[in-house]
Amino acid sequence: MQESSTNTNYREWNIKPTIAANNTTNPIRAIVDNGKYKPNPSKSLIPLSIGDPCVFGNLNVEQSVNQVLKQNIDSMKYNGYPPSIGYEPARNAVAKFVETPTSPLIASDIILASGASGAIEIALSSLLNPGDNILIPKPGFSLYECQSKNKGFELRFYNLLPNKSWEIDITHLRSLIDNKTKAILINNPSNPCGSVYTREHLLDILAVADEFCLPILADEIYCSMTFGETQFIPIASLTSTVPVLAIGGIAKRFLVPGWRLGWIAIHDRNSILGADFKRSIISLSQIILGPNSLIQSILPTILDVNNEGIQKFFKEVNKTLECHSNLTVELLSKVDGLSPIVSHGAMYQMVGIDTKKFKDIDNDVTFMGKLLEEESVFVLPGTVFGLPNFFRIVFCAPEDKLRDAYKRMEDFCQRHKL
Amino acid sequence: MQESSTNTNYREWNIKPTIAANNTTNPIRAIVDNGKYKPNPSKSLIPLSIGDPCVFGNLNVEQSVNQVLKQNIDSMKYNGYPPSIGYEPARNAVAKFVETPTSPLIASDIILASGASGAIEIALSSLLNPGDNILIPKPGFSLYECQSKNKGFELRFYNLLPNKSWEIDITHLRSLIDNKTKAILINNPSNPCGSVYTREHLLDILAVADEFCLPILADEIYCSMTFGETQFIPIASLTSTVPVLAIGGIAKRFLVPGWRLGWIAIHDRNSILGADFKRSIISLSQIILGPNSLIQSILPTILDVNNEGIQKFFKEVNKTLECHSNLTVELLSKVDGLSPIVSHGAMYQMVGIDTKKFKDIDNDVTFMGKLLEEESVFVLPGTVFGLPNFFRIVFCAPEDKLRDAYKRMEDFCQRHKL
Repeated sequence: MQESSTNTNYREWNIKPTIAANNTTNPIRAIVDNGKYKPNPSKSLIPLSIGDPCVFGNLNVEQSVNQVLKQNIDSMKYNGYPPSIGYEPARNAVAKFVETPTSPLIASDIILASGASGAIEIALSSLLNPGDNILIPKPGFSLYECQSKNKGFELRFYNLLPNKSWEIDITHLRSLIDNKTKAILINNPSNPCGSVYTREHLLDILAVADEFCLPILADEIYCSMTFGETQFIPIASLTSTVPVLAIGGIAKRFLVPGWRLGWIAIHDRNSILGADFKRSIISLSQIILGPNSLIQSILPTILDVNNEGIQKFFKEVNKTLECHSNLTVELLSKVDGLSPIVSHGAMYQMVGIDTKKFKDIDNDVTFMGKLLEEESVFVLPGTVFGLPNFFRIVFCAPEDKLRDAYKRMEDFCQRHKL
Repeated sequence: MQESSTNTNYREWNIKPTIAANNTTNPIRAIVDNGKYKPNPSKSLIPLSIGDPCVFGNLNVEQSVNQVLKQNIDSMKYNGYPPSIGYEPARNAVAKFVETPTSPLIASDIILASGASGAIEIALSSLLNPGDNILIPKPGFSLYECQSKNKGFELRFYNLLPNKSWEIDITHLRSLIDNKTKAILINNPSNPCGSVYTREHLLDILAVADEFCLPILADEIYCSMTFGETQFIPIASLTSTVPVLAIGGIAKRFLVPGWRLGWIAIHDRNSILGADFKRSIISLSQIILGPNSLIQSILPTILDVNNEGIQKFFKEVNKTLECHSNLTVELLSKVDGLSPIVSHGAMYQMVGIDTKKFKDIDNDVTFMGKLLEEESVFVLPGTVFGLPNFFRIVFCAPEDKLRDAYKRMEDFCQRHKL
């Protein structure tokens, strides 16, 4: 067989990583996970770095959840392909779980996905074309950046204000909008801040969305994980005009992030998105055909708002996290050079570092590295969330581990102080 | 606050489906699932359309698989986030399961994904930039088209030859290659053909890959689901020069497509892809963070090649499918106007339609529609796989259902014959 002349340049192997792969960068991997820093081998590692409540084994899924999962495995009714957007009873259960009196939902408003990550990916792809931009929080969860860069979407970072309970700097937010802006992403309760927005602040955000006719992508994966008097308010419940794609899932509230079940709830009370948009988001769900069928099958039981065992479990987990949050602020407030900012929800606490107080710690990445090398305590530097000179603590560890970690931090700061 | 003049065009809501969403079209949905055809309400529906072995409840996962899954649920060790590419013991189990003496694998060669669909998505994104093209089979599985169009990759369809056991038309394949061609996708055993390539044919394909320096993306999800003397040969086992990304998963062999666990096995014996490529594919895995952790946790047990219960189960399933395949050919060969093409693997049979023999059936889509409306038997027209005037049967249904369906087809053809 003869080869055509246009093919002669094919005589050498030359396979390069694609643009999308090169752009899919995770700042956590780039800054932290590069092998530069190692824990102190003479001290036990205390990882307060990963946003995974299951790391220590002290926080576990409620037993009845496992029970219904095992029953459904035995039934062998849930091994085939569900519809790509999820079983209808599962989507109906999510609709009832997520809706509020002012923002009712039905099964067809829900798209199930492979984790909240999968849900965010579908939502971003439904709203932006390459070259469009989306407004995202700084500091913020690095996955938004990782996914957007993969798809050629531009990111515009709006500032959160540490001194105003991490509220959005609305003036800054407005200044970033141009005719390529397609959505405002908010994360409430916030990773990494642990902040929970008030009704007034949510209304301020909605006013911007209304004025510029921008839909809101609301990452509410930590919904209702709030402490004390603080109440979580779904942003969709406060607007009848702004379309809201609300992201949720069972990962954090049920303490099962590995199970990979998330969702998009499409709030479109004024039919601004309409049927075309819903069809398009269903098309996007067909690319990987939805989340695990067995986990889908338990949603009608575990998301039932009348399931008292689960409601009690939610309260207990919140109570534990609140205690850990209070302990964190109490102990770290006493450490010269550190300024913990009170958390009102999620499982996170940001702590400011006053580098002027230290003789040899000039930034948060150095702080993280030396703390790990000397004390085997692992935190994430604020830089990976876009905000230097803070660090993030995940306060899910058992109380004794937290006390140990904070004592080591205190010793560390003492040793390095100017 | 003042709005800048560049923002004034933002005063109206105008949210349109994105280009990616519009391009994510599924031919099955477009041609079949558009509500145009309804089953006959007076006859029970026999769906031979969906490639899901669980539809009828006659083919079920092996009990020991459920057993280990339930044990691992009880252990509560597998609820947190696995690494985005999967737990190392799970990847090690896949490596042992997939490798051959000539194509050895280790855990770091394996990427777990959310179903084979998720694995194909990552593999395509690792090989092609928008505007590049990939060679794919016609007839072929529609997901390749759905995913590629979503990402802006060009598809070039090479012909399979019905009269040569659905082998690739190698001359046609070669003629499609240009300097934007980045990979050859093969699907062996084939959906929708049920064909299984011989060693000689695989070597012919590899010769083209070698000549043009093109990696192979091998969708081998139906690996080892073969009948009689036919043996499945992984294409990677036959080359030491051509890099092969082999796609697999537990969906079909274990009869659990809803569980969504697939993988990419990176065969790169000559280090042509290299470490950069592996890093890039790991980056891509971080977008949705891998498949369900519980299902990952059972792989070391269920993929163990020394697990005799599982090996026996594989044989029994293959035997059942072989009987169903033989029955299909036997009964439909007798029907004037239909020409079933013998299947050697997977769960599919293509059947040719001689439209000249019918008075009012001018193509496969009409055949499918009228058969559904009159006999409540649902098959997929070849057009959804790119090959008109064939239809695909999924022969997983129980034997009595298959006999019933084939009798109805016979009556149908009799009624419509010229």
